[in-house]
Amino acid sequence: MPRDTHDRDPRYDILFEPMQIGPVTAKNRFYQVPHCTGMGHLRPRTLAEMRRVKAEGGWGVVCTEYNSIHPSSDDLPTPSAALWNDSDIRAHRLMTDAVHEHGALAGAELWYGGHRTANLMTREVSMDLQSVPNAVGHPFQTRAMDRTDIRNLRRWHRNAALRARDAGFDIVYVYCTHTYLLSNFLNPRINTRGDEYGGRLENRTRLIRELIEDTKEAVGDRCAVAVRWAADEQVGKDGQPIHGERREMFEMMAELPDLWDINIADYSLEMGVSRFIKEGSLEPYMDFVKSMTTKPVVTVGRFTSPDAMVSQIRRGVVDFIGAARPSIADPFLPKKIEEGDLSAIRECIGCNICYSGDSTGTPIRCTQNPTMGEEWRKGWHPERIEPAGSDSSVLIVGAGPAGLEAARALGQRGYRVMLAEATTELGGRVSRESALPGMSEYARVRDYRLQQLQEMVNVEVFLDSRMGVEEVMEVGADHVAIATGARWRRDRYNGEVYVDIAAPGSEPLILTPDDIMAGRMPEGDVLVYDEDGYYMGGVIAEALVANGNAVTLASPSESVSEWAGKTSERWRVRRHLAGMGVRFALAQELTLFDGKTATLADVFSGENTTLDVAAVVMVTARAPVDALYQDLMTSVEGDADRLPFTLKRIGDCEAPAIVAAATYAGHRYARELDNAPDPDEPLKHDRVDVGETPEGAHLREE
Amino acid sequence: MPRDTHDRDPRYDILFEPMQIGPVTAKNRFYQVPHCTGMGHLRPRTLAEMRRVKAEGGWGVVCTEYNSIHPSSDDLPTPSAALWNDSDIRAHRLMTDAVHEHGALAGAELWYGGHRTANLMTREVSMDLQSVPNAVGHPFQTRAMDRTDIRNLRRWHRNAALRARDAGFDIVYVYCTHTYLLSNFLNPRINTRGDEYGGRLENRTRLIRELIEDTKEAVGDRCAVAVRWAADEQVGKDGQPIHGERREMFEMMAELPDLWDINIADYSLEMGVSRFIKEGSLEPYMDFVKSMTTKPVVTVGRFTSPDAMVSQIRRGVVDFIGAARPSIADPFLPKKIEEGDLSAIRECIGCNICYSGDSTGTPIRCTQNPTMGEEWRKGWHPERIEPAGSDSSVLIVGAGPAGLEAARALGQRGYRVMLAEATTELGGRVSRESALPGMSEYARVRDYRLQQLQEMVNVEVFLDSRMGVEEVMEVGADHVAIATGARWRRDRYNGEVYVDIAAPGSEPLILTPDDIMAGRMPEGDVLVYDEDGYYMGGVIAEALVANGNAVTLASPSESVSEWAGKTSERWRVRRHLAGMGVRFALAQELTLFDGKTATLADVFSGENTTLDVAAVVMVTARAPVDALYQDLMTSVEGDADRLPFTLKRIGDCEAPAIVAAATYAGHRYARELDNAPDPDEPLKHDRVDVGETPEGAHLREE
Repeated sequence: MPRDTHDRDPRYDILFEPMQIGPVTAKNRFYQVPHCTGMGHLRPRTLAEMRRVKAEGGWGVVCTEYNSIHPSSDDLPTPSAALWNDSDIRAHRLMTDAVHEHGALAGAELWYGGHRTANLMTREVSMDLQSVPNAVGHPFQTRAMDRTDIRNLRRWHRNAALRARDAGFDIVYVYCTHTYLLSNFLNPRINTRGDEYGGRLENRTRLIRELIEDTKEAVGDRCAVAVRWAADEQVGKDGQPIHGERREMFEMMAELPDLWDINIADYSLEMGVSRFIKEGSLEPYMDFVKSMTTKPVVTVGRFTSPDAMVSQIRRGVVDFIGAARPSIADPFLPKKIEEGDLSAIRECIGCNICYSGDSTGTPIRCTQNPTMGEEWRKGWHPERIEPAGSDSSVLIVGAGPAGLEAARALGQRGYRVMLAEATTELGGRVSRESALPGMSEYARVRDYRLQQLQEMVNVEVFLDSRMGVEEVMEVGADHVAIATGARWRRDRYNGEVYVDIAAPGSEPLILTPDDIMAGRMPEGDVLVYDEDGYYMGGVIAEALVANGNAVTLASPSESVSEWAGKTSERWRVRRHLAGMGVRFALAQELTLFDGKTATLADVFSGENTTLDVAAVVMVTARAPVDALYQDLMTSVEGDADRLPFTLKRIGDCEAPAIVAAATYAGHRYARELDNAPDPDEPLKHDRVDVGETPEGAHLREE
Repeated sequence: MPRDTHDRDPRYDILFEPMQIGPVTAKNRFYQVPHCTGMGHLRPRTLAEMRRVKAEGGWGVVCTEYNSIHPSSDDLPTPSAALWNDSDIRAHRLMTDAVHEHGALAGAELWYGGHRTANLMTREVSMDLQSVPNAVGHPFQTRAMDRTDIRNLRRWHRNAALRARDAGFDIVYVYCTHTYLLSNFLNPRINTRGDEYGGRLENRTRLIRELIEDTKEAVGDRCAVAVRWAADEQVGKDGQPIHGERREMFEMMAELPDLWDINIADYSLEMGVSRFIKEGSLEPYMDFVKSMTTKPVVTVGRFTSPDAMVSQIRRGVVDFIGAARPSIADPFLPKKIEEGDLSAIRECIGCNICYSGDSTGTPIRCTQNPTMGEEWRKGWHPERIEPAGSDSSVLIVGAGPAGLEAARALGQRGYRVMLAEATTELGGRVSRESALPGMSEYARVRDYRLQQLQEMVNVEVFLDSRMGVEEVMEVGADHVAIATGARWRRDRYNGEVYVDIAAPGSEPLILTPDDIMAGRMPEGDVLVYDEDGYYMGGVIAEALVANGNAVTLASPSESVSEWAGKTSERWRVRRHLAGMGVRFALAQELTLFDGKTATLADVFSGENTTLDVAAVVMVTARAPVDALYQDLMTSVEGDADRLPFTLKRIGDCEAPAIVAAATYAGHRYARELDNAPDPDEPLKHDRVDVGETPEGAHLREE
């Protein structure tokens, strides 16, 4: 159905004023800064279409992820982009052409990893200022750069800039932050070289200044030269910059580039999860920047509110509203502001599941935007969807993230949708979880969808409507999707079977996150046992501390919230919990609890230790709440074809997973109704295809 | 220079007897079992050429890594092979055609991951017997398979078998080991299904039997059907199988497939590092296999000795000598046995660096065979090399792994080579390290090269020849390579600078691995401080225990020998050390040592603890021993062009790293002499290339 759009609120006009950046002009102030995607040089078509959609959504500038300038900077399994050769030029051209079609500028960030890259794929020797260990733990040290190496680096940077220009980029970056090579040159502790590139401040900034000049000289007639730069020198307390010499350094270079893209030293704050870091968190670090340069300035802050954006510009903090995550959650954020359709904005929840793509070397996904990463291979668009393929009606049982998204997307397609929720509240797990400490923004998953559903006359929502087989039959829908979620289990999985930890004959207080979320709080000392390994264990521990319990967090993992390392929050979680007095028992398996004493076994030695606690909260695995699905299947003896409707499970009810998997499942259900792909070959693949013969090799879209 | 080859020793004739496998016949008994490569569906050309070289080297059977049969089994970032569609058929055809040209059979292992795959790339729901957590810690549970799912799985398996046949494979596997889905069906503890696929033994084997029959029916006229199968049921003590019902199970299926490829339950033994596991370690598990089936049997055992191979066959343990690692270290192992050139065999050292390719999602490499993974992109062949490009002479200073390999490969090219070693022993670090507990096989890196050098009249080796600038000048070589290695540092790297840990005013006993390897052993309690994170910390701890010291191993990592997780030995290391009484202090940074008390700071909280020890061994980082290189450069004021020879550093002397990087650097130096690639574009890349326009897209070799 057509969205009811309006004119832009004049308050937001300033966001749509063009701004010159050196030789090019951005049509507005929406600037998608370079961000990783898990695609890079491995998946050029996937990448180009994803970026194109952002340009279509109104971003005035759309950048790539970092581009390696030479094979001696190779970050695999993290797939960076590359500007190594003509093939890269062709790959990027797919993106720049598409971005230009929408009137946006395309930006390329040139990158050299230094001590952060082990070059596992290319096997080239990494270079940095000194011979130092690889920063991410691979057993490869760098070579200390000599003058020849610096000359080579400048040539590679220049060649990459020329390739970027030839690929059609409008903005080319000198990237000197995030502890990659160039930022090490600036660092007064690291860069103690005795030559003209080290020691005093003028020397430490020399290479950056040379690279800016080299780049301007090479491509400055056609491309703007941007510098990505940290406003502070060291990580301090959140919101309290340690500027060090940064002000002085900045002053020295303030007019050299055409644009400043400002970062900070603490990546876990710059890209902090919403549990710890809120909108606009970089502002305290920006105080001197605009006052010292006439060049346009951009920074990030996970901005989703147009008022906050306008305020940033009016108060002179920035000229451009930089965004990575908000542009992932809603590629059409600018267009929605432009069209006065603010309520349609799909706001980033700050879960950082997007970053896990980079961490796991797989394509980026998004909790809020299930089309992210599917633009090319499935042809999914974040705002457009196929009209209904029939006049069928659809019953969706369960209004958690999967059910809500299925209802929304089916509603958008024009189906008649009935959404039945057993409780009196919509949102399912995101409503429950968003009440836990720090988790409030997860409610945006629900709120966006409720807002959309309100505008759809073809979607009916029924609260307090628990459905059994009979009730489902009575509805008479043509299609039924069961989205009844999952519940946390009270037992644990030992790798082969689920085992109860209650000591025989005892009736100990064993709770689950569902109990805690329902307000069933224990008294006394509590053991939180985390086999899940993502955020829930830590959040539950925090909720218990807030409840006054003394808490020990145990896990068979050697780390606290291990998987949260993939979303950049692991260290914050551990420090945060330790700071509130939570104790840790790591590499421990919980084997028994009798109500007073919990027995833990060391995962390596098997050695037992005990811990006296009044209750245990098991954060282990989940059981799908699929009784309705199973009952429906049983009613036809397992033969789904005998049902008077098509039947599917979606989301946690099918396979408990992250929230992003639930919105994805809901969206996919909606997309595929009357439009199913071949289940045996469900995907296009963006990978090397060879022809019938090596000679006649040519590329196919699979 | 031509290798001096002989006739085959008749003792080994049995290894070259053909053997029928169902409808196909292997020309000999050398069987490269399926093994991962870090290439898979991402790098088909790299993969095909690597496998081709093995066929050329005489392997009678050459298999691929596991092939996903459907996108719902997706292991990225680990790049498996795939049989999903026509593109995969074309990709595999590159390999099978090449393998067939050498008269070898090509095998494809069909694979479904189940609870081991989170499907991060494809986003399909994983399926397994139950709804269980992902086995490698991703927050995605599986869906419990129902009858429809089993039907689908069988169809996918059949389709994949047909694609394998169409791709030209001769052997198609049913793969039911390694805790992937099919092995879970066999497991009596996991598979408690109430239907005909679970519960009693006959039911638990049903799916496997059906898949064997399906595969035979589909492709059995042209392809042999192999089953990869574990001989034991559970992990027991090394060498003491817990067969459980395996015998009975095997009996039930003994004649169904055309070949049995036997594994065991403990992957860390099956593929154990030489530090813990020696040649032929699977034999105790094989006792019943051959007696129960008339079908040919293969298993592995890191066999490099032809006598051991013959013994395996003569004693009826196996029919084929299976190999993964020995075929990586020496793709020409069969040919060398055939030609009576046993001393030329490059024996696997069991370091498992090959497996780190899989673990890190990057192409496989090998310590012994520096051409591994470079067959396609650099055109490197393990046995052939370009003849010398000139009649130049080359001086190599330092006879560690880099220097030895450079000398060997330059000698093979026909250059006049002088290899100067400062000490009285050849081998450098591999000689020193091989004297440490469990490390003896590392000496093979030296021994293979010494053996080769002995046969080369154009290579002179000078022992006890420490070289300074003058001595180098006097030699008058046209090319000089400095391969003088590295030494372990006494300080530590704090992320920005190297810092001394000696308390001010104190002169504490701070040792390094070099001291321990030189026999300078401390007395009393010792702290081994491991910031390196690979094997050395653990090995040094073990050496100290053997010396009678009480040892604590501290590390800023949360794990013992963390990076050794990528070579499959981390758990063994920890248990082994714990078993000999080593204590651990993890997530601790060593900040100070005054000779009596070491101060450690928790990496998360900064909290200090102390430990009373008499000595500390720092296993942190290494300093290149590059004084000669630097002196030579200084002698011409940094302008290498003014030297009367070309000058290069190679190996640890350039950038301290793993031994595989040193042999690689030595080999590369030799390959590139008079034959240098463009340093700005040193590599071909096996990745997606798009044409000038999306429509006219075609594949190029970059």
